[in-house]
Amino acid sequence: MQQTHTAPKTGHVDFVGAGPGDPDLLTVKAVAAFDRADVVLHDRLISDAILQIAGRSARLIDVGKAGFGPSWRQEDIDALLVRLAVEGQRVVRLKSGDATVFGRLDEEIEALDAAGISWAIIPGITAASAAAASIGQSLTRRGRNSSVRFLTGHDMQGFADHDWTALARPGSVAAIYMGKKSARFIQGRLLMHGADRATPVTLIENASRPDQRILETTLDRLASDLSQADMTGPALMFYGLAPRAAVRAATELKKEHA
Amino acid sequence: MQQTHTAPKTGHVDFVGAGPGDPDLLTVKAVAAFDRADVVLHDRLISDAILQIAGRSARLIDVGKAGFGPSWRQEDIDALLVRLAVEGQRVVRLKSGDATVFGRLDEEIEALDAAGISWAIIPGITAASAAAASIGQSLTRRGRNSSVRFLTGHDMQGFADHDWTALARPGSVAAIYMGKKSARFIQGRLLMHGADRATPVTLIENASRPDQRILETTLDRLASDLSQADMTGPALMFYGLAPRAAVRAATELKKEHA
Ligand SMILES: C[S@@+](CC[C@H](N)C(=O)[O-])C[C@H]1O[C@@H](n2cnc3c(N)ncnc32)[C@H](O)[C@@H]1O
Ligand SMILES: C[S@@+](CC[C@H](N)C(=O)[O-])C[C@H]1O[C@@H](n2cnc3c(N)ncnc32)[C@H](O)[C@@H]1O
Repeated sequence: MQQTHTAPKTGHVDFVGAGPGDPDLLTVKAVAAFDRADVVLHDRLISDAILQIAGRSARLIDVGKAGFGPSWRQEDIDALLVRLAVEGQRVVRLKSGDATVFGRLDEEIEALDAAGISWAIIPGITAASAAAASIGQSLTRRGRNSSVRFLTGHDMQGFADHDWTALARPGSVAAIYMGKKSARFIQGRLLMHGADRATPVTLIENASRPDQRILETTLDRLASDLSQADMTGPALMFYGLAPRAAVRAATELKKEHA
Repeated sequence: MQQTHTAPKTGHVDFVGAGPGDPDLLTVKAVAAFDRADVVLHDRLISDAILQIAGRSARLIDVGKAGFGPSWRQEDIDALLVRLAVEGQRVVRLKSGDATVFGRLDEEIEALDAAGISWAIIPGITAASAAAASIGQSLTRRGRNSSVRFLTGHDMQGFADHDWTALARPGSVAAIYMGKKSARFIQGRLLMHGADRATPVTLIENASRPDQRILETTLDRLASDLSQADMTGPALMFYGLAPRAAVRAATELKKEHA
């Protein structure tokens, strides 16, 4: 039966993973959530191409925590989410990659739970998957690594500590998020724990975006190569993976023809 | 300038991640690849809903390696991919989740490289992301875990060995693929290395699909609870994560109303 009276609108928040930046790497479900939304709260890392789709019919609010300039405090984002939902709005909270991977999702969910507001998570392509695709490598490979770690270069305490002994073992593969600033620290720790100096390290900047760049190096050259590379965009660092030869050849070809 | 003569068609293979099963978790790019493809080679885990989309205009070939009945050998899949591409066909090689995560991708890529055939990887939503979304938890969380491991329950040698000492530490989180058969082994190794018996363990069967089921248990009850659960579908096992209370409440509500 169709309801004909005007029921009070109930708000709802969808936490949507935007993927790495290529709008074609949005899921069908994410696009549908945008089209249903009244308002989209997004981070700074979200690409313009995606914001254009997200803002087709919804209002966009940038709650990015910029390094410089006016920036949003987490409490203010939590409070805004609650307020919009209480008003009965359908909200998309848009986060880069997959919202459950280094996405600071929990505080926002807890604020909604405390206020009794319904929410859901729509998964997205995390940077590690996009970066692996870009270099043509698997994150795991039979006979090489039966596990892969996703880790962050820095946490609340500063440079993040990890299980360096295990990481230093031959065949280890890790996808390091937010690793640029801590590259020298990571390099030092791994070498100290006996990692092979020649272990491949690859940085993929702006994975999946038109300005994607790949820096191929090794553990012992990591800090010096990175300092010369002038990488200002978001970058995913692979420890233990080098680009596949066919990808490397294609990338060089493109450079020659540019 | 439009080319009016008939150029020899050149084949190409797109390795496409199908995501966990919900067709709405396909990427826009995956759907476009289907629509461009002449033929789609797919695994057994791919859901019917996705095969319907994949097969709208392309021919479907099931190369699933079934446990029973006729099954494809890896070499035969490699050879078929090469043959179709050499014929000039546009091929999609469809794998569940993200093709770079426990996807046995490398052999197929190497066969294509050896034959000089062009290929690309289109990333997909891996089971861990979908399962985390289903239980409303983050894979990483500030102050709890600054890394997450994706690992497999079994590898070429049988039950896969892992860095149990590190995994046994408080706050560790792992997404265990193909973990059902090795659950008792994993439980034993972790307890032996000092893991807390009360560590939460959650299995998500058929994540994102209509028949999704969530089994919430702890490390000490894992093997016995799992043996009673009769899980026959693909399941992702989280070590160190329990469903969020709000999700648990909603799931129980659904059961009561069923
Ligand atoms: C705060 S974390 C968010 C991660 C995100 N939730 C995900 O799943 O990809 C930001 C970090 O993700 C990585 N990242 C995000 N987008 C990226 C891209 N397009 N290319 C490379 N790395 C990216 C970088 O390491 C960046 O420092
Ligand atoms: C051969 S691996 C392939 C993994 C896939 N490439 C991915 O990224 O998700 C198969 C395992 O993935 C997990 N899996 C795949 N689809 C799943 C789903 N819908 N729900 C839960 N687990 C799933 C299960 O652990 C299953 O045993």
